[in-house]
Amino acid sequence: MPLDEYFMARALKLAELGCYTTDPNPRVGCVIVKDQQIIAEGWHQRAGQPHAEANALAMTPDVTGATAYVTLEPCSHFGKTPPCCDALINAGIKRVVAAMQDPNPLVQGQGLARLAAAGIEVVTGVLASEAQRLNRGFINRMTKNRPFVTSKLAMSLDGRTASAAGDSQWITSAQARADVQHLRAASSAILTGINTLLADNPRLTARVNVPVQQPLRVILDSQLRTPINAQIVQQPGRTLVLTHVAESEKIQALTDKGFEIHQLPLSGQHLELSAVMSFLATQACNNVLIEAGPILNGALLANNLIDELIIYLAPCLLGDGGRGLFHLPNLLTMADKKNLRLIDTRQVGPDLRLTFSPE
Amino acid sequence: MPLDEYFMARALKLAELGCYTTDPNPRVGCVIVKDQQIIAEGWHQRAGQPHAEANALAMTPDVTGATAYVTLEPCSHFGKTPPCCDALINAGIKRVVAAMQDPNPLVQGQGLARLAAAGIEVVTGVLASEAQRLNRGFINRMTKNRPFVTSKLAMSLDGRTASAAGDSQWITSAQARADVQHLRAASSAILTGINTLLADNPRLTARVNVPVQQPLRVILDSQLRTPINAQIVQQPGRTLVLTHVAESEKIQALTDKGFEIHQLPLSGQHLELSAVMSFLATQACNNVLIEAGPILNGALLANNLIDELIIYLAPCLLGDGGRGLFHLPNLLTMADKKNLRLIDTRQVGPDLRLTFSPE
Repeated sequence: MPLDEYFMARALKLAELGCYTTDPNPRVGCVIVKDQQIIAEGWHQRAGQPHAEANALAMTPDVTGATAYVTLEPCSHFGKTPPCCDALINAGIKRVVAAMQDPNPLVQGQGLARLAAAGIEVVTGVLASEAQRLNRGFINRMTKNRPFVTSKLAMSLDGRTASAAGDSQWITSAQARADVQHLRAASSAILTGINTLLADNPRLTARVNVPVQQPLRVILDSQLRTPINAQIVQQPGRTLVLTHVAESEKIQALTDKGFEIHQLPLSGQHLELSAVMSFLATQACNNVLIEAGPILNGALLANNLIDELIIYLAPCLLGDGGRGLFHLPNLLTMADKKNLRLIDTRQVGPDLRLTFSPE
Repeated sequence: MPLDEYFMARALKLAELGCYTTDPNPRVGCVIVKDQQIIAEGWHQRAGQPHAEANALAMTPDVTGATAYVTLEPCSHFGKTPPCCDALINAGIKRVVAAMQDPNPLVQGQGLARLAAAGIEVVTGVLASEAQRLNRGFINRMTKNRPFVTSKLAMSLDGRTASAAGDSQWITSAQARADVQHLRAASSAILTGINTLLADNPRLTARVNVPVQQPLRVILDSQLRTPINAQIVQQPGRTLVLTHVAESEKIQALTDKGFEIHQLPLSGQHLELSAVMSFLATQACNNVLIEAGPILNGALLANNLIDELIIYLAPCLLGDGGRGLFHLPNLLTMADKKNLRLIDTRQVGPDLRLTFSPE
């Protein structure tokens, strides 16, 4: 019924409020409705704190006979907090509408089954695709053992990410760069390559004016060339260096500075990128943002490891001597071209932000 | 008064109907209004045929006391048709609203003065910028002795106009390529370079399902390498080769096939591009569409000869081995970047069409 969509849309809006803070937990919202009126609502804010359902139930003393709208199947197990299923049953909720099941293969459907067994009417699949989009990182980690990977690139109209001389500050506007901070804030990890680290000495922090859980900073550095005085490690939060070499002296020097070093297998001269993504899943990363140069981006693309591409296109030209977006040495003819699908276009200051997914 | 804008907007819509056919004349529309009702309207269709005012006046026997809305100052001279000023005066028009003066320095304001001298109330500047945009090519030719120059490029998301192997058919969709036909139809000339001619053997005709005056086809070919059997000369309309060399035998062979050969000065190794544009103005070209490769586009850009850039951006990647948009060997650092302004964004099939003007 259309009212279900209406209240679920509100629950999704609430869930979104957790975008910068729920990691590694999913983003979940809950709305409790009685006589077609919202009588309580809540969302999950941080791992370890109450779930969306518990926050909503805490708002009002009597929810007997009400309907609860949840963007994700209520949990049926004791984690850091007691099971939400029991809380809903005990509170006297009569009907539960869930946008989607829990994607965890060990859970999927059990929470809903428990509600149904308690005599509660259960509906699922209301605004399912919107709910899936909100937790696509969590879903990827649960079902594929890898994060949802977004690569962000800032380019001139003629597809250049740096001038012929190599400088790139700044191609895009202050507004576009501020927008990037929100992409970072919604990410579990920001991944870059050693060449970008050496060239730009970036901080890779999310600088937004709202509470944020700083994403992991991850450097792919097969030969362990990370400078011990790089400013990336001086920021709040963790900085990981993924490498193949095992030079204990350099590892000790980096560790003393605060870097966390992890060894991963090689594929050719570079780290095995699917192993990198599996590793990040074990680090509980749901969403990974790539901020890297053409070599790493090209390798990720060639390995089909990019799930979404966000391009900030600045209205300027840098000429054909400038640096490109994707180094794809095996792409020779039109038959080899990588096809994408345009998902979203919006203007950010004087620039365009274009979102694509692989076809 | 707002009604003036309302009726002028209608006159501009009528003027637009001449976009594919009025060359070298401007696009002009006319609306005649009495008691706030449109009683007649017309537009200029082809050079040599009646002007917009004459077409409107022919629609209705009595326009005494009416207001005439014209998108361009009525003419006051005998050309291929009698002066529209006299026609408006003789018909008993009481008020004339013009969007803009005639940009021809020899005419500017004389038509309006003549109307005023006959006791007609004259207003100018209503929707002036819209009217100027419609005839920006004609205005450029009249005031700067050069056409309005639009460069159209089709590229992948990563700024490539051909694969590493050099093929480019097709980067963009059938819908985008159909849209290009309309850009061609609205142009006085399509300009390309000898490298594009040799690589693609293009026809460079406007293939639209409405009446169109085929644009001039113009090849920049400093060394006169145009093949005599190129299919470009076998199309309806004129094909010009602009060159520096004077090999009478080759010139004769090309001329026999239908090419028109013109000698122009060199600047370094290439034809002097501002001389090319002045020459096209002498050929009565208002709007020139560039369909060329990175060398010619880079040279035009470096010489500030591009007034508008239309990019068809396809959602695909060709990798950094592909051909770029603009060869700009002197653009080395970010300080040198060419800044543009985004004018328009629209989706054409799966592609984006982006319009920019130089800043």
